[in-house]
Amino acid sequence: MKNAFYAQSGGVTAVINASACGVIETARKHKGKIGKVLAGRNGIIGALTEDLIDTSKESAKAIAGLRHTPAGAFGSCRYKLKSIEEHKAQYERLIEVFKAHDIGYFFYNGGGDSADTCLKVSRLSEQMGYPIIAVHVPKTVDNDLPVTDNCPGFGSVAKYIAVSTREATLDVASMAKTSTKVFVIEVMGRHAGWIAAAGALASDKDLDLPVVVLFPEIAFDRAKFLARVDATVKKFGYCTVVVSEGVKGPDGRFLSDQGVRDAFGHAQLGGVAPVIAGLVKSELNLKYHWAVADYLQRAARHVASKTDVAQAYATGKAAVEVALKGRNSVMPAIKRVSNRPYKWKVEIAELKDVANKEKFMPRNFISADGFGITEKCRQYLTPLIQGEDYPPYKNGLPQYVRLKNVGVKKKLGEFKV
Amino acid sequence: MKNAFYAQSGGVTAVINASACGVIETARKHKGKIGKVLAGRNGIIGALTEDLIDTSKESAKAIAGLRHTPAGAFGSCRYKLKSIEEHKAQYERLIEVFKAHDIGYFFYNGGGDSADTCLKVSRLSEQMGYPIIAVHVPKTVDNDLPVTDNCPGFGSVAKYIAVSTREATLDVASMAKTSTKVFVIEVMGRHAGWIAAAGALASDKDLDLPVVVLFPEIAFDRAKFLARVDATVKKFGYCTVVVSEGVKGPDGRFLSDQGVRDAFGHAQLGGVAPVIAGLVKSELNLKYHWAVADYLQRAARHVASKTDVAQAYATGKAAVEVALKGRNSVMPAIKRVSNRPYKWKVEIAELKDVANKEKFMPRNFISADGFGITEKCRQYLTPLIQGEDYPPYKNGLPQYVRLKNVGVKKKLGEFKV
Repeated sequence: MKNAFYAQSGGVTAVINASACGVIETARKHKGKIGKVLAGRNGIIGALTEDLIDTSKESAKAIAGLRHTPAGAFGSCRYKLKSIEEHKAQYERLIEVFKAHDIGYFFYNGGGDSADTCLKVSRLSEQMGYPIIAVHVPKTVDNDLPVTDNCPGFGSVAKYIAVSTREATLDVASMAKTSTKVFVIEVMGRHAGWIAAAGALASDKDLDLPVVVLFPEIAFDRAKFLARVDATVKKFGYCTVVVSEGVKGPDGRFLSDQGVRDAFGHAQLGGVAPVIAGLVKSELNLKYHWAVADYLQRAARHVASKTDVAQAYATGKAAVEVALKGRNSVMPAIKRVSNRPYKWKVEIAELKDVANKEKFMPRNFISADGFGITEKCRQYLTPLIQGEDYPPYKNGLPQYVRLKNVGVKKKLGEFKV
Repeated sequence: MKNAFYAQSGGVTAVINASACGVIETARKHKGKIGKVLAGRNGIIGALTEDLIDTSKESAKAIAGLRHTPAGAFGSCRYKLKSIEEHKAQYERLIEVFKAHDIGYFFYNGGGDSADTCLKVSRLSEQMGYPIIAVHVPKTVDNDLPVTDNCPGFGSVAKYIAVSTREATLDVASMAKTSTKVFVIEVMGRHAGWIAAAGALASDKDLDLPVVVLFPEIAFDRAKFLARVDATVKKFGYCTVVVSEGVKGPDGRFLSDQGVRDAFGHAQLGGVAPVIAGLVKSELNLKYHWAVADYLQRAARHVASKTDVAQAYATGKAAVEVALKGRNSVMPAIKRVSNRPYKWKVEIAELKDVANKEKFMPRNFISADGFGITEKCRQYLTPLIQGEDYPPYKNGLPQYVRLKNVGVKKKLGEFKV
């Protein structure tokens, strides 16, 4: 009976801990078949430096609390393993740590880069003779993993952006007569426009709101954009622009990279929202306000999608179940069974089909003019934000869990990463 | 039996419509004593231009829905009346409109500037012989009105900032090992630091988080701030900075006003968050992320404070009740009866004591070092964010009400504002 290693990787989300909860609770249910779940402190770095957390020291209540706690309870990292050929010492170290702590299962919870790391670890058996079962648990607010219909983490950020865009657009509608006419909100998604697309959900049949979306998939056309904002403000009196941080100009450069210097000569560390707002002001002379949601959007567990929480938990649970069946180098994926009513199930994808591939918005999800979403896209997105899953509150604030994170006694020498 | 005029003024909030709901529902309960509630389209401008909305055309369900709908359902405006001496024509026009529509009650829902406008209107009886009862309904996210213990609108933005700061700080805690170490969030409050103070609530006895607050009441001391961030990151590994948009340097200039120009030579329309983030990067070489909450914070009805919603409704209700008792030139104010348990009631304040005064954070609410709040401040703030009051959801989104806003037939000639 082997122990399991679990770690969180890359940018965290509102529901990555729900996946951790699924992994740990499911492992605890199979006590005869799987030992302790040892978590990497700060992702794979915890494995390399033998900085392991003994999750068996946490109460059932604390682990259950992970389901409603955002961010990464064990710490995450941005660290990509090179190939076994390029950096054999790291893999030898991993095997050394796995051996020392009797680890036979490797669960890695992350996005595209993490799927690649997990794939490399899954090959330790064949390439270096160490028997390990490596399963990737999908997570990314960017929703850019292939094979899976959607990624845990995305539904909640999509809900946050849709709700916030609806609220702020009602705000600007109130102010437009004598004050702000254009509101700009910058959202995440450097390469794929899924999160930006969610902004368009703010407007629907029940509440028609003027929302213009700028996708990273569509090269920014200054004249066309200004004409669109101008026409929208003339029609509605106001307008909201949802802009992806990854929007690029026709020259392929990020719009946020304007070569601006501050008073001290440092590069201006701006987002794209102030650039868009500045354009609206200078070219159309319209009063604006702008917001940059940044971490607020991906940490917003208080307005998480119930569907997303359920899927995050389910993929964590399925990871353990499939590992116990001996499947290596796989990832539980979400399969959409039907749209209305929305039904989904977990299927098992091969990791080689997932790693190092990005899924962008298909062109037929973006409206012909490039500033909105199609009905097809709306049908895809809408189910993912369904349901509310509020955390418990105490004293007016969500009661998020902080684990004890007791370290496992080290048995090996130091290793520098 | 006279009709009533109601209007919304200044920046809107998550709960100003709850006050409108209180006004209209209460007026409807006193049908024999008060006529229709006619709302100004876009605030006082609607009165001047005779652009009135007949709220009697709205169903009871739609009016009830205002209680959970953010922003200003009738439109707001930023428009301050001059004195009667300076701009007599405007007051004559107001009287003309009031006469034409048989208006005997004037309810004005706003902040400090609006209290001033309401005070001027309340003097129409004595100064121009038109009998009117003018009552101000308090509203401001800035919480800077005097006399009242707190302002409807503030509790909800405080809750939003406290919750968001808690969530984003857990996020940066997860990332700090290999990535972001300092998260900066910019909040509203150009003169008073009440909203910034709410960021400090993110950390409490249950969840100790490193939060550094920059108040507009405390002149920014660059060296002291950097030393504080440096020490905090050394101790915790990460840090969140909550910065008020109104923070000024020792020279009295807004920190956000760095004289920065963009690539086209336009003034950079930046917030203060990127300035603070830039400082952290250039002087401490720490990786940062920053967010600007802007309208998202004051429109965030999805995470409103139940206490705030109740107080917004109660002040609207009390405004009508006190008007029916013949009291002119007053404002329903919140009186704190006790802290533990928190009890409050509505009292009636004289408008002359409210108008044109701002309430700043008392120095004993700010910690000695200037970067946090005192226990006294925490005791003041905590009750105001108590309770959740979720809007109904449909299709994954809050079902916010949009009124029909049927115009009243005009009887007078045009008037330019």
